Amino acid sequence: MTITITAFERSPDGGKGLARDTRVRWALEEVGQPYEVRPVSFAAMKQPAHLALHPFGQIPTYEEGDLVLFETGAIVLHIAEHHAGLLPDDAHARARAITWMFAAVNTVEPPILDLVTARILEGDKPWASERLPLVMDRIRGRLQQLSARLGDADWLDGAFSAGDLMMVSVLLRLRPSGLLNEFPSLKAYVARGEARPAYKRAFDAQLSFNTGKPLAG
Amino acid sequence: MTITITAFERSPDGGKGLARDTRVRWALEEVGQPYEVRPVSFAAMKQPAHLALHPFGQIPTYEEGDLVLFETGAIVLHIAEHHAGLLPDDAHARARAITWMFAAVNTVEPPILDLVTARILEGDKPWASERLPLVMDRIRGRLQQLSARLGDADWLDGAFSAGDLMMVSVLLRLRPSGLLNEFPSLKAYVARGEARPAYKRAFDAQLSFNTGKPLAG
Repeated sequence: MTITITAFERSPDGGKGLARDTRVRWALEEVGQPYEVRPVSFAAMKQPAHLALHPFGQIPTYEEGDLVLFETGAIVLHIAEHHAGLLPDDAHARARAITWMFAAVNTVEPPILDLVTARILEGDKPWASERLPLVMDRIRGRLQQLSARLGDADWLDGAFSAGDLMMVSVLLRLRPSGLLNEFPSLKAYVARGEARPAYKRAFDAQLSFNTGKPLAG
Repeated sequence: MTITITAFERSPDGGKGLARDTRVRWALEEVGQPYEVRPVSFAAMKQPAHLALHPFGQIPTYEEGDLVLFETGAIVLHIAEHHAGLLPDDAHARARAITWMFAAVNTVEPPILDLVTARILEGDKPWASERLPLVMDRIRGRLQQLSARLGDADWLDGAFSAGDLMMVSVLLRLRPSGLLNEFPSLKAYVARGEARPAYKRAFDAQLSFNTGKPLAG
């Protein structure tokens, strides 16, 4: 059954891999599943046809036969549950990997999204420069705790899992801010994620998709 | 095997049910599993013993034999996967219910948490009153989309599921703001959640826990 995902017709980041379709592409590459990508324009995302797939008018969506899913975390978990490579076999380790998926999107990502709000949505407001350090400090608090838990391990809980895929993807959003440089172990953790062949394939595919240039090699 | 969760020794809301242990209590009541609650003080939450259970120093945690979990969404999903009552049997419907769990914590809750930031953490800042309407409008945008999808249905996708449990719990945080009154169908949706016997038992248990008064009846 063909898997089809949606992605921005042109990603706002111009192909830096920060749009959420990259997370789903990465998961599909890790488990070796081919997929097709349907571009959606900003205008089309708010139209009924797309809202029927994604009630919040975003990307990515996931279609496989009769199944339609949205929410990156749910899509990655669905892929991980149906193909080997992203969740451990041991039941307890599996539950802990899923815990890290939720931690990524519910505990670590919200203060990072607030940085986007502060810089982009409220960048022209009179409070922008005074508020920014507060937002940055809240992110630092989370990164400190995450760094303490990671310690000198390669991944958050044993082998690489869907939890790491989600956490690395969330942390990647911080690169332009320079905050990762303050936490060398997390910077190295993100680099380990980016060095995975499946990540590289996913990144190159979204870059080619966004720039219209063919894949190298 | 005994299930033990952690909760605030005294919840900041004084027992209004907004602390996240209520979500886990509700899930356990829906599936009919008994549980024990260990109180954690604010000071103890930042100490190594608790950080070993929860790297971000929060509640709730979930212990069952050797298994230790944190993150409310992951705990509720674990309960739903191991006991009947919170996820449909049909594979596609199950995946969609999990999608709503992620949508609750990743798409709907972040702007709602921003309201807590605006009101509490930044309530004394010079920009507080001017910024608040922007935060409220971002929440309205999400509620409008959620309301459109719910339509006149009782629950988000067929029968009540863990997705509804999480979404109702997230929306409950909005009650003090009055925003739910602007979306009658969502207000009724939340009321349907609160009317479930399992929710009532969970609410009463956390209230008794927080006030020190015995359960009525």
